[in-house]
Amino acid sequence: MSHSVWSYDAPLREMRFVLEHVLDAAAAWAECPQHADLDLDTACAVLEQGARFASERLLVLNAPGDLEGCHLDADGRVRTPAGFREAYRDFVAAGWPALAAEPRWGGQGLPLLLDALLREMLDACNHAWNMYPDLLHGAVQTLSAHGGDELKARYLPRLVSGEWLAAMALTEPQAGSDLGLLRTRAEPQPDGSLRVRGDKIFISGGEHDLADNIVHLVLCRLPGAPDGSRGLSLALVPSVLPDGGRNAMRCIGLEHKMGIHGSATCAMRYEGATGWLVGEPGRGLAAMFVMMNSARLHVALQGLGHAEMAAQNALRYANERRQSRAPRQARQPGEQADPIAMHPAIRHALLGLQARVEAGRVIAARAALALDLAQHHPLQATRDAQQALAALLTPLLKSRLSALGFDGASAALQVFGGFGYTRDCGIEQSLRDARVAMIYEGSNEIQAIDLVQRKLPAEDAAWHALLDELRAEARACAAQPELRDFAEALGAHCDAAQAGVGALLARQDAEQRLALAQHAMDGLWGLLEAWAFAASARAATRVRDADPAWADARLLRMRYGLQWLLPGVLSHWERLRGADLALPQLQPG
Amino acid sequence: MSHSVWSYDAPLREMRFVLEHVLDAAAAWAECPQHADLDLDTACAVLEQGARFASERLLVLNAPGDLEGCHLDADGRVRTPAGFREAYRDFVAAGWPALAAEPRWGGQGLPLLLDALLREMLDACNHAWNMYPDLLHGAVQTLSAHGGDELKARYLPRLVSGEWLAAMALTEPQAGSDLGLLRTRAEPQPDGSLRVRGDKIFISGGEHDLADNIVHLVLCRLPGAPDGSRGLSLALVPSVLPDGGRNAMRCIGLEHKMGIHGSATCAMRYEGATGWLVGEPGRGLAAMFVMMNSARLHVALQGLGHAEMAAQNALRYANERRQSRAPRQARQPGEQADPIAMHPAIRHALLGLQARVEAGRVIAARAALALDLAQHHPLQATRDAQQALAALLTPLLKSRLSALGFDGASAALQVFGGFGYTRDCGIEQSLRDARVAMIYEGSNEIQAIDLVQRKLPAEDAAWHALLDELRAEARACAAQPELRDFAEALGAHCDAAQAGVGALLARQDAEQRLALAQHAMDGLWGLLEAWAFAASARAATRVRDADPAWADARLLRMRYGLQWLLPGVLSHWERLRGADLALPQLQPG
Repeated sequence: MSHSVWSYDAPLREMRFVLEHVLDAAAAWAECPQHADLDLDTACAVLEQGARFASERLLVLNAPGDLEGCHLDADGRVRTPAGFREAYRDFVAAGWPALAAEPRWGGQGLPLLLDALLREMLDACNHAWNMYPDLLHGAVQTLSAHGGDELKARYLPRLVSGEWLAAMALTEPQAGSDLGLLRTRAEPQPDGSLRVRGDKIFISGGEHDLADNIVHLVLCRLPGAPDGSRGLSLALVPSVLPDGGRNAMRCIGLEHKMGIHGSATCAMRYEGATGWLVGEPGRGLAAMFVMMNSARLHVALQGLGHAEMAAQNALRYANERRQSRAPRQARQPGEQADPIAMHPAIRHALLGLQARVEAGRVIAARAALALDLAQHHPLQATRDAQQALAALLTPLLKSRLSALGFDGASAALQVFGGFGYTRDCGIEQSLRDARVAMIYEGSNEIQAIDLVQRKLPAEDAAWHALLDELRAEARACAAQPELRDFAEALGAHCDAAQAGVGALLARQDAEQRLALAQHAMDGLWGLLEAWAFAASARAATRVRDADPAWADARLLRMRYGLQWLLPGVLSHWERLRGADLALPQLQPG
Repeated sequence: MSHSVWSYDAPLREMRFVLEHVLDAAAAWAECPQHADLDLDTACAVLEQGARFASERLLVLNAPGDLEGCHLDADGRVRTPAGFREAYRDFVAAGWPALAAEPRWGGQGLPLLLDALLREMLDACNHAWNMYPDLLHGAVQTLSAHGGDELKARYLPRLVSGEWLAAMALTEPQAGSDLGLLRTRAEPQPDGSLRVRGDKIFISGGEHDLADNIVHLVLCRLPGAPDGSRGLSLALVPSVLPDGGRNAMRCIGLEHKMGIHGSATCAMRYEGATGWLVGEPGRGLAAMFVMMNSARLHVALQGLGHAEMAAQNALRYANERRQSRAPRQARQPGEQADPIAMHPAIRHALLGLQARVEAGRVIAARAALALDLAQHHPLQATRDAQQALAALLTPLLKSRLSALGFDGASAALQVFGGFGYTRDCGIEQSLRDARVAMIYEGSNEIQAIDLVQRKLPAEDAAWHALLDELRAEARACAAQPELRDFAEALGAHCDAAQAGVGALLARQDAEQRLALAQHAMDGLWGLLEAWAFAASARAATRVRDADPAWADARLLRMRYGLQWLLPGVLSHWERLRGADLALPQLQPG
């Protein structure tokens, strides 16, 4: 079957458009001393280099890594697929892990916004490989915020550079979504260290051959700690001790998974391993949650990367594959059939995916910018407001973009038809790889609980500030006659969402609130998409002089999103404003 | 991790409930001479035996078959996974392939309705294995309707018994959804046979070791045939010739697929293979389409089987797996946590899946009953009306139940969490296996085209008869005060669908109609679900005396479907009644 090779054309132009015209990132950077010297051309040059690394070094390892997988040798060491180690060595040598880390630990201090766009590209080309460095940022953040000076000095420089890698050891067989159930124990030693004993499962990158030391952050209980999540502490447990000896911990099994075969998902046994407390005793969960906003944003970017990859490869195929005739008349009468890109079902599939990817990138970038402003803006009020906004957006991004990665891969697979169902194509691996993002870093069900039980009640000011920001966009669109439909739709979504969230929070019964959580999630994501469509459309009109065809095509996709994707969303708010409905209990089964 | 073993508890009680109380199948059988002697107990005893075969013989081969896959040996022969051959031998010995075949060819002449419920169970336990016998029915139907007497006598008895198996050879590299593009040639010989030359791909069961002869029905062109689908003819090409020699055809490759690894998906080369014409020259597509209603119903049943399997295994897990507390108060305070079955998100996932599976089974069974009545009812008018109803329901069932199989597996995977993402669980294989059903036997996009371009315009009488049947159900529900909400919802869906279909058919522009095709598909499926919820709820009230707990639980699930699943559906009809919207062309990409 004639077909395109699975390939990656990094969306650099689109990324620059988002930075420059949708978000005006340079203006935000100018306000922050740490980023004041950064200009757009430099930022985009960095992204261009990242795109080159992703598409030249990682994509070629993606399908082979899926076939080969990881192997656990008899001595307990894990071998990653061929080429992973060399690619990681060069990734470190090029300084990529340090991109957004703090200069005082050797980081380059560039914005998380750039780091986010870089990650999208790495994930698009090789999700499994990128699992290893993806864990660094959270470990660095946690250690920076809660580690003692000695631990910081010993571990941060080599984690920031990427010379050493990290693992987050949370889950145990009986404790997944509910970490309060975990049992791993840590006993304080006279020298101030801990001896850690217990079994953990689903530990991504718990053991592998990419780095000489793997720094585990292990959630555990000190002696006498109470049951439940309040009794948890966090220990730093390196695979290699400061004296160069191996620590008393080992990988006792690798999971055989649906996807991300190149990522070592380890069952770890800590057999009196030496560690050190990070943060206060009993405050382990709080220390862990420091990293959650950015770690969950990373998962969102995995979904975005998969969806972008799916959309662009399916589009290439749809333009090449000829079957049947376009509905009104033959488009290419000299050929035996028209490209399937002419068929309405294919246009819906790909326009929908493109519009969602472009909106998702805008929303994710806005959240990353919020994290940068929360860290670096000179005004405390701005830092607080942006931190709250990031906290509010996090569960939405994690849940909806991980779902987009999976649903988008499935939609693209459908465009490829039977070929898509074979391993030769590439999209079935995307679908398998993308699926995990809906589960880990807090399942999407946990994200919905986080949204309605924590974030919306706690971040009322951020919610209203967000509504203000969105309504300002609606007013700006209303001032341009050609964008009046965007203004009206965004305004309608703001009104419906405000009323719907109010109705949700007015419900006192936790069960009813939770029963409506996914409706709130979907409704709010629709609101954010409505904003992203509007803001992107308005930005497109501003660049029309430079490249009318590109700008008009962008505008057309945003209007497609507005007209075809958004109308169904408003029914979620009707449900939130409606009467209580019974949610039956399940049968014993 | 402690967990249930992946297992199958055949929904025999539910099936009997559908036959006896929802559809009153015995009354329909009584009207048809061929089925007049069949009673419900006998029918259910047959299903019970089928359930035993599926759960005792096929389930045990499912995961191993996925791991082992099929192998193409150097001599061009295909080996199926260990145990497949023996299971098939015993399946034939027990007479299962002949269940619904015509008695004059050795069939047992039982209703397709029973055959459909049997297939659901076989597919639930081993989709890949069931691909082989699944192809028999269509071949038998095609040959019965269009074969010459000699061909029938030579092939039908051994196909009906299952001693020989069949393959449908349609797709070529350049011809998938558009069969008019295919190039395989057939040259008539002086002895009346054909010499067939060409390459076919994606031929399920094209070569394997389950039977001594594989009868291929090959779509091809006779010399001088025009281009396009009007030039196609159908040839019967057996792998073993009547003289016992092997025919000039071979498997030149096996696809490496996302799922159904135990099903041999062959690239076939016909190298001057001997064959015989089935049906008129140039009428090959019409002969092929004889089998389409039942073949597409079979695909729907694959989806239903996967969804049932996913629902029941996820429910067992949800009742065992303990994480966190139920929202209002601890349900099992003596344990460290409550079963996740208590959590609203899990209840939504599983109640939604259960309600959809139960409704899907009712709708599929109604279509199978229509096929039986179309074949066996003494009145021509009834036969015609039921044939038209089956034709109308076919694309809806194929598309929506194949999607339910995949979406249901994904929803269940989410219930299993990280464990679901591992191969140990079983659900990730279901998801991979189920995905193919959205593609083959006419992709779901083709089904939507079939619905709005062929079935709805052509089957206007059947559409109005269906509305009458559904409105009669609404009136029956209205007569029972406790079912008034079902009556109102079903009535509202009937009204909205009638207006929406009218608005769709009033559009003259093929492109606009196609642009709305998926909305029509989703709206009509919602209408059918509304009917199935109502009819099942009313039937449940009739069996309440015998088992109040069972009946009330069934009613509760149907009301869940009514209240939580259906409201969003009506927005599809708004779109169908709305103004034309532009559907942009895709970029060159």
